[in-house]
Amino acid sequence: MVNRNACILAGGMSRWGMREASLVDLFQEAAKDCLDFIPGLKPKAIDGFLVSSAYSGRCSFQVNLAPVIAERCGLQPTSVCARVDVLCAGGSTAILLAKALVESGNAEIVLVAGGEKLFTPQKWEVFYSELASIDHDWDAPHGLGLPPPYFAMIAKEHMRHYGTTKEQLARVSVANYFFGHDNPKAQMQKVLTLEEAMNAPSVVPPLTLYDCCPITDGAAACIVASEDKAKELTDKPLVYLRGCAQASQHSVSANHGGQHMADWPALRSAAEKAFKMAKLTPDQIDVAQVHDCFSISQIIEVEELGFCRKGEGGAFVCSGQNRIGSRIPINTDGGLLAVGHPFGGTGIRQGTEIMRQLQGTARHQVQDACFGLTHNLSGLNSEQTVIIYGREPAN
Amino acid sequence: MVNRNACILAGGMSRWGMREASLVDLFQEAAKDCLDFIPGLKPKAIDGFLVSSAYSGRCSFQVNLAPVIAERCGLQPTSVCARVDVLCAGGSTAILLAKALVESGNAEIVLVAGGEKLFTPQKWEVFYSELASIDHDWDAPHGLGLPPPYFAMIAKEHMRHYGTTKEQLARVSVANYFFGHDNPKAQMQKVLTLEEAMNAPSVVPPLTLYDCCPITDGAAACIVASEDKAKELTDKPLVYLRGCAQASQHSVSANHGGQHMADWPALRSAAEKAFKMAKLTPDQIDVAQVHDCFSISQIIEVEELGFCRKGEGGAFVCSGQNRIGSRIPINTDGGLLAVGHPFGGTGIRQGTEIMRQLQGTARHQVQDACFGLTHNLSGLNSEQTVIIYGREPAN
Repeated sequence: MVNRNACILAGGMSRWGMREASLVDLFQEAAKDCLDFIPGLKPKAIDGFLVSSAYSGRCSFQVNLAPVIAERCGLQPTSVCARVDVLCAGGSTAILLAKALVESGNAEIVLVAGGEKLFTPQKWEVFYSELASIDHDWDAPHGLGLPPPYFAMIAKEHMRHYGTTKEQLARVSVANYFFGHDNPKAQMQKVLTLEEAMNAPSVVPPLTLYDCCPITDGAAACIVASEDKAKELTDKPLVYLRGCAQASQHSVSANHGGQHMADWPALRSAAEKAFKMAKLTPDQIDVAQVHDCFSISQIIEVEELGFCRKGEGGAFVCSGQNRIGSRIPINTDGGLLAVGHPFGGTGIRQGTEIMRQLQGTARHQVQDACFGLTHNLSGLNSEQTVIIYGREPAN
Repeated sequence: MVNRNACILAGGMSRWGMREASLVDLFQEAAKDCLDFIPGLKPKAIDGFLVSSAYSGRCSFQVNLAPVIAERCGLQPTSVCARVDVLCAGGSTAILLAKALVESGNAEIVLVAGGEKLFTPQKWEVFYSELASIDHDWDAPHGLGLPPPYFAMIAKEHMRHYGTTKEQLARVSVANYFFGHDNPKAQMQKVLTLEEAMNAPSVVPPLTLYDCCPITDGAAACIVASEDKAKELTDKPLVYLRGCAQASQHSVSANHGGQHMADWPALRSAAEKAFKMAKLTPDQIDVAQVHDCFSISQIIEVEELGFCRKGEGGAFVCSGQNRIGSRIPINTDGGLLAVGHPFGGTGIRQGTEIMRQLQGTARHQVQDACFGLTHNLSGLNSEQTVIIYGREPAN
């Protein structure tokens, strides 16, 4: 029934890492990088602005962030100007909302920006904020807290059920570090060897240092606009938002409801809905960015997204299927593990990389990529967001 | 070009005031009150969930609020599940986003819930959070901080330019308290006399106690769905979201750019865009809920919304034009002044009251109300959100 197609037509980011810059500075850097992509676009023509940031209120003492960033970037939105928080999945949620705004005609050109300033003079603030992200009524009394122990439990569960090995986990990191080693905006610009990954210090067994994404300052930004506006603004190939869905399944059912922790039905639900909307199947996807906050999450995600069978994610990675030229290259810019993870910015970085892949201008280009997918999760596995992009619209 | 109309078909709220309840409890109370409105609607049929809360991260130590509330309310959203923060205007922004989600077909039935828990054991936390809501680069060095002194400056400016009087300010409060005195969910359930209002203790001159809305714990919730779904779910008269807009104009230009502080061009811009989308003019509006965080704001809002000429807002109120039977009754449930103001909840309370007015079931009913308007602002006057409702769709 949708009669206005939404396109992603520009994307950019600040340098990600440990930064001597304020949250507002980081957003300004990302917005400039994005807007430089389309020289013909004047900031005042942008009528919608969505900002994704989870910890701006706690780590940067800035609630109501959207008008502050809008002012600094010279924007005067007339349709919408709002902050979105879905923790780590805020970036893709903001893209999903921009798609709805554009398709419904409530906005024409939406700037979507996301990011965090996590390194603060109070170094513990980011950890307190992490603790503010769990469900205090259910997770806390059950002993769930920061993500590393939680994902370590998931990794153990996957190992027990499916025989997944530490080497398979390490190979996810090695692959993603390779894609990120020459990304000038990435936090970790190094080639990681399997030996180094296998012998890295333990964080929470079985997860080692390179199985976990780093703490990151940074921001990313992209433009979502109607097909007509996109054609006016750029002569680059158009990249359409074909389908999207976000499924929620919180801790009570996911972690205390009896199902095993490496089984993620909410992701299957989101993927199914997004594929249906996009009129595509998993085997048609040429390139994907998935949420590798931990190496184990990428293994489970390729299963639940339908790229391989349940339980075979470890083998899928080890057989090299996520390299260029393989079945489906994944996290081709380095992913969360190598580029970093400023929570609200990650989904936008993912969308931007897919846009570049579908425009044929990515650093590690997948030849003739027609369809791309992003997956972004949040919290203790409580929300799953899937967006599917294509060089042709679904309708 | 929009081909799917969005309707508001249910609304409810918790009791508002100083509450011995957690933020999650307040949301659950509001969601239940809302869902009781449509006995046929099962929580699991709700595919979209938007939560509006500004201070959940700071005052309730809860970032990523949406999945926590979803779980508690028995929801399993499959289209979107996100938190929106535009400070005081978050509630109407969430309704605006729900409209876009429904009209674009990205969601069918969206529960929109908003609220705050502001009274905390650390009594100063709400004031620190207020200070976290200003632009630190611009407002703070210019001495702008908490809202009362800021709106007092605006009141002085309006008095100087247009001869507005303290009695006119007081009459706004008297009118709104009258509408709220028999509202069982309101924080201030009392009839306020003009004498009492005129002789109240000063907060910041010229504003007295009754010129300022209180600090409030509370939540509100409403359902926005496609016209088809609404027809399936209820036989009450349908209320359509005909138009909406949100304009941003931050402190640098609004407060330090030379324009006078009682002139609110962003509100004129939002109103103009919303009226155009709704295919209506201000004289066609039968009832309105405007953002009376301070009595002076209501006076300026009736001007900028086009209900009277610029500078005549004080006289407009004093001639009784905002009473039932007058030109346009305003804040018919008591407004922020009498019902209270849990930031993220206010826009949803406003939308719910307009829905009741257009369905003919309001406590203080405006006879044959066909078209209603809500106005919700945020921050130091930095964002203006206008939504227009009608018993018929615009298209």
